[in-house]
Amino acid sequence: MFGLISRMRAQAGRRGELMEILLASTSSMPGCLSYVVAEDAADADAIWITEIWEDEASHKASLSLPVVQAAIGSAKPMIAGFEAQTRTRPLGGAGLSVLR
Amino acid sequence: MFGLISRMRAQAGRRGELMEILLASTSSMPGCLSYVVAEDAADADAIWITEIWEDEASHKASLSLPVVQAAIGSAKPMIAGFEAQTRTRPLGGAGLSVLR
Repeated sequence: MFGLISRMRAQAGRRGELMEILLASTSSMPGCLSYVVAEDAADADAIWITEIWEDEASHKASLSLPVVQAAIGSAKPMIAGFEAQTRTRPLGGAGLSVLR
Repeated sequence: MFGLISRMRAQAGRRGELMEILLASTSSMPGCLSYVVAEDAADADAIWITEIWEDEASHKASLSLPVVQAAIGSAKPMIAGFEAQTRTRPLGGAGLSVLR
């Protein structure tokens, strides 16, 4: 499995709108096992995105999907920046039927 | 929902053992919607734990479960430290049937 943990900063006051766009594009991504969008509890403009994919190739392929391309276009003006992005290798856990 | 994103450091060379313990304790935690344990792809001793709970109370209650208490006891000697822990409010996403 391939994972990404990203911290994104929204333009001031636009986190809600930005999260709506991110959430709307998360269905129907082949190879995506989990894609969760969360507010940072201590920072009003920070967003955490945690993703789990079957492999890195499925993540890369998702970036070309029309729904994802459209989301990137809509989201861009609301994004102040990516503050951190970590690549992970999820080994397992609870809550996802495909994980052990 | 209540989320935690934690970066833990294993004692040098003990990440695999530590992850096995963390993974073994993740079943049967009431209110736990997701608990994923992942290696950091760029740091041989770093572990990421991403958790989603129905609410903060269910997370707190889990710390008293015998299975979790036992895991904490076994894991402690292998943990060098917690490097970061962020509290989040997951709003939704893909991959979890309870999320929108």
